[in-house]
Amino acid sequence: MLIVQKYGGTSVGSIERIRSVAAKVAASKAKGNQVVVAVSAMSGVTNNLTAMAHELQKEPSPREMDVLLTTGEQTTIALLCMALLEIGCPAISFTGGQVRILTDNAHTKARIQEIDDTNIRRELEQEKVVVVAGFQGVDEKGNITTLGRGGSDTTAVALAAALKAEECQIYTDVDGVYTTDPRVVEKARRLDRITFEEMLEMASLGAKVLQIRSVEFAGKYDVPLRVLSSFEDGPGTLIGSEDESMMETPLISGIAFTRDEAKLSVVGVPDVPGMAYKVFGPISDANIEVDVIVQNIGADQTNDITFTVNKKDAEAAARILESVARDMGAKGVEVDENVAKLSLVGVGMRSHAGIASRMFEALYSESVNIQLITTSEIKISVVIEEKYLESAVRALHTAFELDQEKQ
Amino acid sequence: MLIVQKYGGTSVGSIERIRSVAAKVAASKAKGNQVVVAVSAMSGVTNNLTAMAHELQKEPSPREMDVLLTTGEQTTIALLCMALLEIGCPAISFTGGQVRILTDNAHTKARIQEIDDTNIRRELEQEKVVVVAGFQGVDEKGNITTLGRGGSDTTAVALAAALKAEECQIYTDVDGVYTTDPRVVEKARRLDRITFEEMLEMASLGAKVLQIRSVEFAGKYDVPLRVLSSFEDGPGTLIGSEDESMMETPLISGIAFTRDEAKLSVVGVPDVPGMAYKVFGPISDANIEVDVIVQNIGADQTNDITFTVNKKDAEAAARILESVARDMGAKGVEVDENVAKLSLVGVGMRSHAGIASRMFEALYSESVNIQLITTSEIKISVVIEEKYLESAVRALHTAFELDQEKQ
Repeated sequence: MLIVQKYGGTSVGSIERIRSVAAKVAASKAKGNQVVVAVSAMSGVTNNLTAMAHELQKEPSPREMDVLLTTGEQTTIALLCMALLEIGCPAISFTGGQVRILTDNAHTKARIQEIDDTNIRRELEQEKVVVVAGFQGVDEKGNITTLGRGGSDTTAVALAAALKAEECQIYTDVDGVYTTDPRVVEKARRLDRITFEEMLEMASLGAKVLQIRSVEFAGKYDVPLRVLSSFEDGPGTLIGSEDESMMETPLISGIAFTRDEAKLSVVGVPDVPGMAYKVFGPISDANIEVDVIVQNIGADQTNDITFTVNKKDAEAAARILESVARDMGAKGVEVDENVAKLSLVGVGMRSHAGIASRMFEALYSESVNIQLITTSEIKISVVIEEKYLESAVRALHTAFELDQEKQ
Repeated sequence: MLIVQKYGGTSVGSIERIRSVAAKVAASKAKGNQVVVAVSAMSGVTNNLTAMAHELQKEPSPREMDVLLTTGEQTTIALLCMALLEIGCPAISFTGGQVRILTDNAHTKARIQEIDDTNIRRELEQEKVVVVAGFQGVDEKGNITTLGRGGSDTTAVALAAALKAEECQIYTDVDGVYTTDPRVVEKARRLDRITFEEMLEMASLGAKVLQIRSVEFAGKYDVPLRVLSSFEDGPGTLIGSEDESMMETPLISGIAFTRDEAKLSVVGVPDVPGMAYKVFGPISDANIEVDVIVQNIGADQTNDITFTVNKKDAEAAARILESVARDMGAKGVEVDENVAKLSLVGVGMRSHAGIASRMFEALYSESVNIQLITTSEIKISVVIEEKYLESAVRALHTAFELDQEKQ
């Protein structure tokens, strides 16, 4: 079985931890697997390098930034190979350029275009573990590029796709994907399986186990992803496509939530065409990302346009809206930072009616007032007052039978 | 004028120093020069990486050691380019592999085979300073290699040779090559010029301004080398070939010395063939480097074979000699660690008689007993009791008119 494993910065954060990663890798190899490992820089290293760069140049050259940061992963691959060799496990390291992970030339946020599997396959055939520097590649001219933060996950998935690996195992500091944040809901349960789509919804809603981009990538190439703990043994959570992993589809896979958003409304917008564009054009020009958007026509034939942005952007967005509201003859602008968003996620809701009403009933029973509602095919999101967030999540967790069974 | 500059680990040892190197480089560029810069890892970095490697593997894999250590220079090239760009000096970095500095595959001590100048020339033509990682290259298969300690000097000289540079400037923490160690002889004088051969003799005798290998290399390809200070302005010392730089040849260029050697003798060796081989065969087998060798036949038709080794090898060499002496029927073995070696170096002695007698006279006037004498075409070395070293060096410095003129 060909397996790609990925270990992040915390997992390789010290000599001791590199040794324990080597033990895990060697154990997988000893089971008869062919193992390719993608690694990040040791934790702290990337931040140190970035700080030095900013001391020297106000806006560091993207090309040179990539030359600088890729030294972090290059250090890890060499050290991990040494640890493997020391315990008698044949191993060889490759930088992104040595594999040849070809990317476009968008320094600091490059996209992988092609992976040449020749060198990796040759070494695997010689019974070696192949350790690849995550996060990096080269462009056509041989310039060193990086994939941006979290890019090591993407490297691992891309390697798994190129090598047609059975599984891409992402080792991290949690032991899998949970029905919701265990710090909020004690009864949160580790999921054995979840679909790519569900994982994407969970990830985009603040469940920060995996980088969104790597999940998208895995889904696109149908690479089974497994999230596991670097520090303890366990099966983790398998993220796969719907047909193979969802024989018994639960209604709801999980509840994601975030406190990072603020709600803004332009109230009393005249009901004429072009108003939405007049609101969101300037917001987009200011590079502010908008999440939920809701528009509702009122009894007086004026609209309220409401949306959420990250809290850090709330002030800038409000300033823009003030002038937009004046121009369009709207009544005013309202900003509310005391909100939270929570979402039910589950492919099961596609084929089951009544999920929304069951959700609203559970929230009502906790006296939670719902401010905004949006839905997608596999998700229902509500925005509520922030102080009700935890009780709401717990109520929904119980209502949708996600609680861990008593042992 | 095309100039190659090399800055060592101390010169780029901090963000502040990298900034001041950038200022020096930009100043040379502003004079209308094309500038290629070779840099070492920031001081301390290589030692830290080496220590990590040894924590993980008793004898670190040479291939992975090279992958590890080359991150040091890669970090410096990126940071130096950022510093150059920040002060408005166009610059681009290249790793050894990106230049393409092709080496053999002798990891940790590779030799340069060929330098492709295409990429560097292209960037120079675009008015950029080209910053190259010293100490590193790639073999034919794309494996990362290193040239061994001090290899950044070699990189600089090889680049200068490949690019047919006018001058290869080695920036270091001293402001040139001195007639002898200024810490011992207050009146030591900086030399304006010295020949490659003289520099080689000086370097091999402990004047640690330049790596021997880079001087050999510069001599072979006739690349004028200039040693300068990174920290203060000044003309430094030009190291060139004899004809161009030695119009007025001084008798003696300098006095080199070392306290690092121990003297060993096998006394009363029978005067039959093969004795020298029987002594030095086992020493060589033990990887002990021998420096001076002197053999003298005594009145009783037995020989004394005397030689020097590095003090750290003296004990091991003595143990070997004990058993060798028994086998060959020699009278015994003597070891003396209280010795020092000093040498007069100068191409002028080729055409002048009487240098040796003038040297011996000066030593006699200081009551220094000479234990061993060896000579080469441009060097006379003597081994003396260590406690006389400093007075001997000072006496010779005055006798051969090397003292700095009063200002």
